[in-house]
Amino acid sequence: MHLSDSMTALWLENHALRLREDLPIPMPQTGEALIRVRLAGICATDLELVRGYYPFTGVAGHEFVGEVVQADGSPTLVGQRVVGEINLACGRCEQCRSGRTRHCENRRVLGIKNQNGAFAQYLTLPTANLHPVPDNVKDEAAVFAEPLAAALEIQEQVDISPKDRVLVVGAGRLGQLIARSLQITGCALGVVVRHASHQALLNKCGIRTLEENEIQSGRWDCVVEATGNPDGFVLARRAVRPRGTIVLKSTFKGENVLNLSAVVVDEITLVGSRCGPFQPALNLLAKHEIDPLPLVEGRYPLTQGIQAFTHAGQPGALKILLDPISPEQSQL
Amino acid sequence: MHLSDSMTALWLENHALRLREDLPIPMPQTGEALIRVRLAGICATDLELVRGYYPFTGVAGHEFVGEVVQADGSPTLVGQRVVGEINLACGRCEQCRSGRTRHCENRRVLGIKNQNGAFAQYLTLPTANLHPVPDNVKDEAAVFAEPLAAALEIQEQVDISPKDRVLVVGAGRLGQLIARSLQITGCALGVVVRHASHQALLNKCGIRTLEENEIQSGRWDCVVEATGNPDGFVLARRAVRPRGTIVLKSTFKGENVLNLSAVVVDEITLVGSRCGPFQPALNLLAKHEIDPLPLVEGRYPLTQGIQAFTHAGQPGALKILLDPISPEQSQL
Repeated sequence: MHLSDSMTALWLENHALRLREDLPIPMPQTGEALIRVRLAGICATDLELVRGYYPFTGVAGHEFVGEVVQADGSPTLVGQRVVGEINLACGRCEQCRSGRTRHCENRRVLGIKNQNGAFAQYLTLPTANLHPVPDNVKDEAAVFAEPLAAALEIQEQVDISPKDRVLVVGAGRLGQLIARSLQITGCALGVVVRHASHQALLNKCGIRTLEENEIQSGRWDCVVEATGNPDGFVLARRAVRPRGTIVLKSTFKGENVLNLSAVVVDEITLVGSRCGPFQPALNLLAKHEIDPLPLVEGRYPLTQGIQAFTHAGQPGALKILLDPISPEQSQL
Repeated sequence: MHLSDSMTALWLENHALRLREDLPIPMPQTGEALIRVRLAGICATDLELVRGYYPFTGVAGHEFVGEVVQADGSPTLVGQRVVGEINLACGRCEQCRSGRTRHCENRRVLGIKNQNGAFAQYLTLPTANLHPVPDNVKDEAAVFAEPLAAALEIQEQVDISPKDRVLVVGAGRLGQLIARSLQITGCALGVVVRHASHQALLNKCGIRTLEENEIQSGRWDCVVEATGNPDGFVLARRAVRPRGTIVLKSTFKGENVLNLSAVVVDEITLVGSRCGPFQPALNLLAKHEIDPLPLVEGRYPLTQGIQAFTHAGQPGALKILLDPISPEQSQL
């Protein structure tokens, strides 16, 4: 493996993104691996970062599949294809000691907080964060491990069984993965769609889609809000039955207005849900129980990252991938 | 039993309370019982009704113990001391058919919605709503069955075990009962207090009390908000650990502003909690595992109900009882 001294990456600063070719290749520290990025995905959080959701300066990107170039203390990892958990834990705080490393009080987060991310030729992560990718999982599927893990977090937090009526509000990048992961539970699933293309993708999987005006009030046992839009929350609140559960799967901008008394009277449970378990996600991809490839809408070379972000920001856009290796663009 | 034609009651109309002596004694319908009220309790919801929380017109009051005078279809109930579930269910709607009768879509609620309540000499309720009171439970304890059931609802909704650190925010009427019911679980319990008298009552039971500035951030597995005050919610939000649970046990006035993104990032669960199971509450009272008598701060004849409400509305006031039978007042 021959490394030049500098690399190309998408750099975020003052909520503006620019392509830089002058960044040093990161140096792995004790217990860390250097990873050559093979493919990275743009998610809503990346778009929100650019829009000012969080004051991050550095290389953006946290969904990736790559190849290990160096691995301090773990030589067998070198040469392996890996995906990586995005939260870098201190291992010493109360949350880490309680096993909640994804909620480490001193955490850095890949491409989001104090750690350069995946829209680059190289990144570093602790070897403890890495999961080898099974050979039968293509790069284009493995790059979905992180958002699929986030979708599976719902089932870590809420018991979903075949007797449950579950509604997903939002059928975009994350909503599509959530719907597919919930379909496996055998629950009575419905997904609220706004775009014909989203509807077609879901129906092709045998997932029932509904328009907003078809949603009966107070009839759904569990509603997953995956739009990040206050209107989506209002719909979720209307759809859920008394003593039902709303899973908040998207972040919302700023403060939200909520009638907490109605939450008390109807005994609603609201569950905030963020990052999830990687290994079950990789297992589902390896067993082809979930095929994320139809969700790829475009693939750009990293050097065309700015155009890729413009594409990803269009209403209804699904997954846009960034390829730091191959120079060709392919719009799917 | 000799019944005159009219009775005395506290009548709520246009958010004003007045004593009426001209109300007809209610007529029990099919499946209903006529109950002579022996003792009734004033709770925060009653005060909120007077302040305009809900547009109820009728006899207020929903916490009571009484004696059955007539009981359609259940002659063995006559003469028994009873407490009563406050939600009158239709038995036909989706919620009733799913076993969630306390969330009946067409429900009437004793002293709160379309059903005259307990601040009266007589009330009616379906016999299905009644629970006989064990002989060894005094009226002054039995009148706490309803709010104690509401406190126990927390444990119906959230698993609390001895390894959990549980914080109760608010040590008033309901907070005191919540704290006592949680103490039985063996959890590591703390209660945030603002009044010295509330603190003394809790410490006497061996319950740890804390002041607001002693609360460490992000350290409590479960926080119960029992103040109904937005400041209480802010404190609960600060105290709960990532992936912890906040139980909302009080209603709040109007709309509330909430940062839902922070709820997502910290994966907090919010659980709205209202009415609870009566039988476990009666069991705890019969076994003297919870003694609510020290929480009685005053006892007024029903005819002095307006003064009783003034007393109950004072900051930090605990339980005020209304007695429709005995003419003497006793301030405890």
